[in-house]
Amino acid sequence: MRETALKLAAAASLLAGLTTGAVAQQKTVTIGVSIPAATHGWTGGVVYHAQEAAKQLEKTYPGLKVVVKTSPDGAAQANALEDLSAQKIDALVVLPFNSDELTNPVREVKKGGTFVTVVDRGLKDTSIQDIYVAGNNPEFGRVAGKYMADTLKTGNVVIFRGIPTVIDEERVTNFEKALEGSGVKVLDKQYANWNRDDAFRVMQDYLSKHPKIDAVWASDDDMALGVLEAVRQAKRDDIKFVLGGAGMKEMIKRVMDGDKMIPADVSYPPAMIATAMTVTAAHFFTNAPMRGTYVLNAQLITKGNAKDHYFPDSSF
Amino acid sequence: MRETALKLAAAASLLAGLTTGAVAQQKTVTIGVSIPAATHGWTGGVVYHAQEAAKQLEKTYPGLKVVVKTSPDGAAQANALEDLSAQKIDALVVLPFNSDELTNPVREVKKGGTFVTVVDRGLKDTSIQDIYVAGNNPEFGRVAGKYMADTLKTGNVVIFRGIPTVIDEERVTNFEKALEGSGVKVLDKQYANWNRDDAFRVMQDYLSKHPKIDAVWASDDDMALGVLEAVRQAKRDDIKFVLGGAGMKEMIKRVMDGDKMIPADVSYPPAMIATAMTVTAAHFFTNAPMRGTYVLNAQLITKGNAKDHYFPDSSF
Repeated sequence: MRETALKLAAAASLLAGLTTGAVAQQKTVTIGVSIPAATHGWTGGVVYHAQEAAKQLEKTYPGLKVVVKTSPDGAAQANALEDLSAQKIDALVVLPFNSDELTNPVREVKKGGTFVTVVDRGLKDTSIQDIYVAGNNPEFGRVAGKYMADTLKTGNVVIFRGIPTVIDEERVTNFEKALEGSGVKVLDKQYANWNRDDAFRVMQDYLSKHPKIDAVWASDDDMALGVLEAVRQAKRDDIKFVLGGAGMKEMIKRVMDGDKMIPADVSYPPAMIATAMTVTAAHFFTNAPMRGTYVLNAQLITKGNAKDHYFPDSSF
Repeated sequence: MRETALKLAAAASLLAGLTTGAVAQQKTVTIGVSIPAATHGWTGGVVYHAQEAAKQLEKTYPGLKVVVKTSPDGAAQANALEDLSAQKIDALVVLPFNSDELTNPVREVKKGGTFVTVVDRGLKDTSIQDIYVAGNNPEFGRVAGKYMADTLKTGNVVIFRGIPTVIDEERVTNFEKALEGSGVKVLDKQYANWNRDDAFRVMQDYLSKHPKIDAVWASDDDMALGVLEAVRQAKRDDIKFVLGGAGMKEMIKRVMDGDKMIPADVSYPPAMIATAMTVTAAHFFTNAPMRGTYVLNAQLITKGNAKDHYFPDSSF
C-alpha cells in the first residue's frame, strides 16, 4: 500500500510537470513575506491571510516557495529582513511596522537585487519599491459618507476619528464631503485613536452632550465595539445604527445575520497582504508587467456581499 | 502504446486534480476579453499578449476558460460585448476603442452581474468597473525627462507631442518638469499625432530650423522611426540619440544591441492586457481582494533590462 502511494506520488509529480509546463521550465522562486506579528486585531488578519495565501500560491505555482516571517516590533522586523535576505529570496513582500525604522532595512534587501513589494504603510523612499499595494483612504471616507446620506437622508451623526495622521484626515474629509447636499448633519467629531476603550469613553461623552443621535460613524470596527457598549450601557434607543470599518469577522457576521445596529461595514482588508503576494508571484510566473501601484477599493459591505468578506478561521 | 498514453492522460488529470486542489473544488470560470483588432502597432502587441496570457492562465488555473475577441472598430466592439455576454461570461476584461462609444455597452454587460476590468482607456462612468489597469502617463514623461537630464547634463532637445489629449499633456508637462534645474533646454515642441509620417515631416522642419540638436524626445516608438528616417536623409550628425516610448520590439532590440542612436526606451506596455487578465483571474481563484486601480510603472528600458521587455513573437 505504501509502495503504491509512493509510486502514485512519483507519477503525480512527473505528470504534473508534463501538464503544467511550469515544472518543465524548472523555475524556482522564493518569496519572503515580512509582517507584524499579532494574535488579534487587523494585523492578526494580516498574519492569517499571509499564511493562507502562501499555501494557495505554492499550490498554484510549482517551483514557488513562500517564507512568512512575523515580527513583534520594528527592530525585530529589521532583523527578520536580514535573515530573509541571507536565505537568498527573489522577492520581499513587506508590511512595515513604520516608515522611519524600516526604510533603510528594506533598501538593504533591495540592494541585493531582490524584487520589493510594499504593503499598506509606505516607505520614506518610494523608489525602493517595485510594487506598492494599499487601501484607498479617501474612498473609505467617501463610501461611508455616501452610505449615511443614502440611508438616513436626514438626521444627526457623530464622527470618531483615529489618530491624527494623513490617513485619518483623508478619511474624515471625504466622509464630510459625501454628506454635502444631504440632510445629514455632523454633531461632533473627536479622536479615539482606533481604540475600543477610548471610543467607549468618547461615546459616553457624545451621549451626555447630544440627546438625539441618529447614527454613528465609528469609522473602525474596534471603535465600533466600544461605541456599541456605551450605547448598550446608556440604554439609548435613538441611535439607528453604527458604521465601522475594516472588515472584522464579528462585524461581518452581524451584517450577514441582518443585525439592525450593524447593517453595513466598509472594507480595508488585511487580506491586502494576499493581493500583494499574488501580484508578486505573477511577476515571476507570467509575462505580465506587474511593477506599479495597486490601490484597492474601499468596498461597502452589506448583507448581499458579506460572505465574500467573511473568513471565520481568521483571528480578525 | 495508444492505450498507455490514454491511461497516462487519465492518471494525469486525476492526479492533477488531487494535487492542485483547484479541480477538486470544480470551480469553472469564463473570462471574456474584448480588445481592438490589429496586426501591427501598439494594439497589435495587445492582441499578442492577450492570446499568450489566455494560454498561460488556462494552464495555471484548471477550470478557467478565456475567450479573446478582437474588433475592428467601436461599433463592432459593442456587438462583440453583446456576443460575449450571451456566452454567460463571469468576467469581462475590456480595452475600449473609446470612452464615448463603449461606456453604455460595458454597463449593459455589468448589469448582468459580470465582473468588469477596464484597461488603459477609462470609461465615462468609472463606477462600472471593478478593476482598472492603466499605464502611468505623468511618470512616462518624468522618466524620459530625467533620462535626458542625467544623460545629456547640458544641451538642446526637441519634443514630439502626440494628439492634444490629457495623456499627452500629462506626459509633456512632467517631461519638462524633470528638466528643471538641469542644463537641458527645449528648442521646440510640436504635435505629430503619434504617427510615423507626421513625425518625419515635423523632424524635417526641426532640422531646417535648428542647426544644433543634441537629442530628440520622440515620446513614442512610431514617431521615433519617422524621426530616425528624417535624420538619416538629412545626414545630420549633431543628434546624439532619440528617445521613443512604448516598447516596440524593433526599438527594444536596438537597445539590447547597444545601438547608440537608441540607447533607451520608456515602457507603456501593451502587455498591460495580460496584467488585467492576471488580476481578474486572481479575483476568482484566490481569496485576495483584487477590486481596485492598478497603475503600472513607466519603466526606463536600457541594455541591462531590455530582455525583460523583448517579445520577438509579438507583432509589436
